[in-house]
Amino acid sequence: MNVQVAKKPLAEALQTVERIVPNRSANPGVNLVHVGALGDGLRFSGTSLDIDIETTVAADVRGDGALALPAHVLGQVVRALPADVVSIDVEGSEMAISSGSFSTRLQIVDPSSAPKVSFPSEYRSTLSAGAFVKALDHVRYAAAVADYQAIFRGVKLEFHDGTGRAVATDGFRLAYRDFGDAGGLTGEMIVPARSVEEIVKAFGGSNVDVEPGEGRLSLQREGVRLNVKLMDGAFPDYRRVVPQTFPVQITLAADELRDAVARVAVMADKTANNRVDLFVKEGTLQITAEGSYGRSQESIDVRQEGSESEIALAYNAKYLMDALSPLQDQLRASFSGSTSPSVLEDPADAAYLAMVVPLRTG
Amino acid sequence: MNVQVAKKPLAEALQTVERIVPNRSANPGVNLVHVGALGDGLRFSGTSLDIDIETTVAADVRGDGALALPAHVLGQVVRALPADVVSIDVEGSEMAISSGSFSTRLQIVDPSSAPKVSFPSEYRSTLSAGAFVKALDHVRYAAAVADYQAIFRGVKLEFHDGTGRAVATDGFRLAYRDFGDAGGLTGEMIVPARSVEEIVKAFGGSNVDVEPGEGRLSLQREGVRLNVKLMDGAFPDYRRVVPQTFPVQITLAADELRDAVARVAVMADKTANNRVDLFVKEGTLQITAEGSYGRSQESIDVRQEGSESEIALAYNAKYLMDALSPLQDQLRASFSGSTSPSVLEDPADAAYLAMVVPLRTG
Repeated sequence: MNVQVAKKPLAEALQTVERIVPNRSANPGVNLVHVGALGDGLRFSGTSLDIDIETTVAADVRGDGALALPAHVLGQVVRALPADVVSIDVEGSEMAISSGSFSTRLQIVDPSSAPKVSFPSEYRSTLSAGAFVKALDHVRYAAAVADYQAIFRGVKLEFHDGTGRAVATDGFRLAYRDFGDAGGLTGEMIVPARSVEEIVKAFGGSNVDVEPGEGRLSLQREGVRLNVKLMDGAFPDYRRVVPQTFPVQITLAADELRDAVARVAVMADKTANNRVDLFVKEGTLQITAEGSYGRSQESIDVRQEGSESEIALAYNAKYLMDALSPLQDQLRASFSGSTSPSVLEDPADAAYLAMVVPLRTG
Repeated sequence: MNVQVAKKPLAEALQTVERIVPNRSANPGVNLVHVGALGDGLRFSGTSLDIDIETTVAADVRGDGALALPAHVLGQVVRALPADVVSIDVEGSEMAISSGSFSTRLQIVDPSSAPKVSFPSEYRSTLSAGAFVKALDHVRYAAAVADYQAIFRGVKLEFHDGTGRAVATDGFRLAYRDFGDAGGLTGEMIVPARSVEEIVKAFGGSNVDVEPGEGRLSLQREGVRLNVKLMDGAFPDYRRVVPQTFPVQITLAADELRDAVARVAVMADKTANNRVDLFVKEGTLQITAEGSYGRSQESIDVRQEGSESEIALAYNAKYLMDALSPLQDQLRASFSGSTSPSVLEDPADAAYLAMVVPLRTG
């Protein structure tokens, strides 16, 4: 195999693979990238065992070949190359890479020593650029992180009646975001939150072709394919925990609340749930926090509605900040009670909903 | 005490203090910042026990006062303030800070519970902007880091015959840089390399007023003062280890060597001193490295001089890269032998000299 290829796209294709393939692994061969010749390019593939990755790059390729190499070594060599064009020659047990006055000979590894990675031959659905990835990105903070939290560590994808939704919850908070067109898909699946992060990074801003498979979801765009392993288990019925009646509702700029909570929370006691207190009355939202260093407070004018004239609540400041993070414009905060869930939404865009359970106080 | 002060310079003054004063400390009171009223501003001071820091900021101050607070809490509160102007009121055991619709009350600590920090009343010498700090910055990589290396963990300052020099060595490499005008100082002192880093950050680009004292060096510029504890002990006589005769010398662009070593060293065996090999012959410098993943090489045309026609050497790639880092233009590398020290310099600027001992090979 003899290849001429531009350095920049080659380096990018390898960097995408290196995001998934570990530099070191207890499992033999998992640190390797498969390199294969296509008619008009090179294909790189590898796996973290939870996620399979394949990238392709256009290249002038003569001859055939399939081999494996430590992914991070190959990536490091390519990134450091001095010239814009790279020549690759595979001879015997070595891959020779030369560029400008630099050359290197890398030891090839038998590709059968790396885990086999395969991708669907067909991707039957396409999800629209932005909306799908944005939905994943906006809800993933609400997924649990601790091992024992099992299925709560996943993000659920629902495809019903032609529309899609991403949902995550850890039992104390919940977020969902609808992404409109379901691309003809139906049914449900649960993607590990850590894999969701990789999907967001690999597919931000692109249309995504998807193909559900046995225990996995496959995704592709021009030049990049991913398989992510799905989670087994039943996701809780989150709909029934979202309250429907709210004695107090307020509307204000999302930014204003975010900034005020960030300022006041400096005083919050990190060992006591990072607590901030909210008090709504007569069109004023007062935010306070108290800890061993002192006490902070800030007031914001809000539009207040509802059957009750006031309400007092406490939250974990981090949970409140996370829930606010996807909201850019107006925010409607709907309080069902001092100890029952609160709902945060953009009144002009029903796609995103965040729910936060207040702290039990006093 | 009642203060009106602009947020930005206040936040900067506190951030400078927070670089030195630890957030947590086993020593009581070391996490505190002293706050004092000046006629026309506020003074903040604290210590890491190795370095004392004082910053001042212009402010409209009424009344008097001296108090202490946890430095990082105060800094965090101030950085998050919403408005450009900050009001500070000290009443009883609390400092009230308000800005826009935000207010906080911080618990004051008795200033006598924090270590006392004092600064000279007079700074008799001034070292010129840039040159002094640049000299420190260019040699500090050569200082040792391990505890047992004692005095090698310091940077020596020499003031002789009206000129100054900074020197560092860990026994395997050495760097010195002259900084011209000694500001009337004479003698020698050894500054811990970790304190040198703080001097570089606090005084980059400024004229520095200095005052040597008993076991410490004091430095100041507009708004910032530092005392750094000096090290006791004898610094080795480094002059006698710098070789004077060189059978082979080469001249080339410093960048070119730096980039080539970085590329080739990807293959170097990290467990075997990160070794790269240099071979000079007939006006060509060949750089090679070999490890378990393969072998890399690159050739550079150089201007070659000297009594011998060729030389082969090996270096720790990191040591070579460190020594090259301050060199921007031309580089003259002078080889005294395959196992004796090599000298790296800019042929047009004698101020900086780096020496690297080659690895023992074979």
